[in-house]
Amino acid sequence: MLLDASTLPALARGCAILGAGGGGDTQVGLLAALQAVEDHGPVPLVDLEDLPDDGLIMPCGGVGAPTVSIEKIESGDEGGRLREMVETLWGRPVVALMAGEIGGSNGIIPALWAAHLELPVVDADGMGRAFPEIPQVTMEVAGISPNPAVMTDERGNVIVFRATDGDWMERIERAAAVEFGGMAWSSEYQLTVEQAKDGAVVNHAVSLAIRLGIVVTEAEHDPVTALAREIHAARLIAGKIVDVERRTTAGFVRGSATIEGLDEDAGRTLRLEIQNENLVALEGERALAMVPDIISVLDSESAEAISTERLRYGQRVTAIAFPCDPIWRTARGLELAGPRHFGYDLDYVPVEELHAVA
Amino acid sequence: MLLDASTLPALARGCAILGAGGGGDTQVGLLAALQAVEDHGPVPLVDLEDLPDDGLIMPCGGVGAPTVSIEKIESGDEGGRLREMVETLWGRPVVALMAGEIGGSNGIIPALWAAHLELPVVDADGMGRAFPEIPQVTMEVAGISPNPAVMTDERGNVIVFRATDGDWMERIERAAAVEFGGMAWSSEYQLTVEQAKDGAVVNHAVSLAIRLGIVVTEAEHDPVTALAREIHAARLIAGKIVDVERRTTAGFVRGSATIEGLDEDAGRTLRLEIQNENLVALEGERALAMVPDIISVLDSESAEAISTERLRYGQRVTAIAFPCDPIWRTARGLELAGPRHFGYDLDYVPVEELHAVA
Repeated sequence: MLLDASTLPALARGCAILGAGGGGDTQVGLLAALQAVEDHGPVPLVDLEDLPDDGLIMPCGGVGAPTVSIEKIESGDEGGRLREMVETLWGRPVVALMAGEIGGSNGIIPALWAAHLELPVVDADGMGRAFPEIPQVTMEVAGISPNPAVMTDERGNVIVFRATDGDWMERIERAAAVEFGGMAWSSEYQLTVEQAKDGAVVNHAVSLAIRLGIVVTEAEHDPVTALAREIHAARLIAGKIVDVERRTTAGFVRGSATIEGLDEDAGRTLRLEIQNENLVALEGERALAMVPDIISVLDSESAEAISTERLRYGQRVTAIAFPCDPIWRTARGLELAGPRHFGYDLDYVPVEELHAVA
Repeated sequence: MLLDASTLPALARGCAILGAGGGGDTQVGLLAALQAVEDHGPVPLVDLEDLPDDGLIMPCGGVGAPTVSIEKIESGDEGGRLREMVETLWGRPVVALMAGEIGGSNGIIPALWAAHLELPVVDADGMGRAFPEIPQVTMEVAGISPNPAVMTDERGNVIVFRATDGDWMERIERAAAVEFGGMAWSSEYQLTVEQAKDGAVVNHAVSLAIRLGIVVTEAEHDPVTALAREIHAARLIAGKIVDVERRTTAGFVRGSATIEGLDEDAGRTLRLEIQNENLVALEGERALAMVPDIISVLDSESAEAISTERLRYGQRVTAIAFPCDPIWRTARGLELAGPRHFGYDLDYVPVEELHAVA
């Protein structure tokens, strides 16, 4: 498959849905990627099977607060600087770029950079969704080192990090991203194709995103229902956003959004707790869905996913939740990205056990 | 000359005097250095003339708030990690360590690390004093690149920075030092012996510090006067500290100290403005001395310099000021480290023009 003007818009739609509200604004990322493939030609989307086992994969994307991603645009050279430093540090070429997270614009940025660099994008990612913190990747679950991490900004500054563990990587990369203005671009957890095949990544994440984008676009009557059926999603509520509280702090967007039910959901109220992504959906005290499962807010008419930084009063939305990649339901996965990691006094219950799924 | 138990205490005294109140606590640095030379043998203090022209000099020291340096002690491996990364990045061996700043414990730390690493220390530094900000070094004035900078902490994290300029180096290194807990250890502005000989460093800074330490120690009656005579210092006031305002913020110590005159200075009041170092000495609206000249606060009896983080109510002190290295009086030197750089609406006037010097 090629990533070009015929597939990138569907990819962007799918990335927004998989992003759980985070990963950065897909509209900005899509425009930049469309321009890049127009200038440099389409990007091959390759399967892990198509790459040499000892080939080096470069996960990459943006780090910071999604609110900033709308205004602080990359200059175009970031991917090249990251690749150059990664290749220097490893002493070998990168064979493919990979989205660190498929969610949001971070699912599109590798295609943008790959066009510039004439590299393929591998059909996989490190989350199967978006998460706010750097070590919340399947590579960390699989025991791959985050080192060396490389970060750059749109001005040309470059930083290389060798951290003692993923938690320190998160702390020092976040501090640098904040100093750069709330957003930066980075690569961590580089790995070989063989390691990726051994389960260190979420396989086929890019083609899944494209498929979801196509399902939404091609649905003739009710795209929300068509999408929910495709991904086995539970419909949490359909209604109107009546309150959004959102602040950009310490390199994250934090806050909450409240949805009041309409029609068959009249009288119900759902509150989404946000840290870059939608983390927990609460009805009163009861959790209807929680990380690491994916909670997305869709426009009730078009099923376009609305990112956390674009939520606003009055939007007619449907909140859905669907299962995360099984790797996040392991003990280590839940330790890294379960509700208790984010400070919620909740035992994780899979979304399909909480709901009769569509 | 050798840096060992016979010279290190004098070096520490001299570094405190040259530190203008900053550069980190010399007592902690001295104890660590004495232990290192006991364990590993004395460190040769070498002249630039004794080193090969193409040899690589590694400036190094601590970065952060001196208040933290009293409590956050290095583990011993920091210098080794910095050297290893610097040698990897340059692809060649380091021939000598050099103090980035001779002031405070940063003038001693290279001896501590050199003992561990069996390297010499070169008799020079990058300031001839201490300054709060990373690009405030003679190497920056001479046009040497700050890149690559290497930073480490006591836990084992390592960061490499390639900044677009010295200002960005300051911003991103400071952010990382703050995240590490307010202090970290680093090397920037590595240079060749030939560049150092061409005026990019302050030559003989280490032997000067040792000489000042000896002058103070060996003075039979009045060490303050003996020291002032040796360095052509103006005596600003002798009195008692009556107020200290000090806060540790954004990786710096900021505040002020007020000295009320005693005896022949009775009725006078001097205020020192502090950012890690003593920046400006004010009597009412009138500046008695200002950066880049060196303002130091001495114990009136012993002439031991008191660092900004150890100033406290009731201390009997004499504030002196003496000329900085001439490189700081150039246009570029004043732009980097003159009073206006620190936000003071003052035209720089050399201390010897403001005072009849002892």
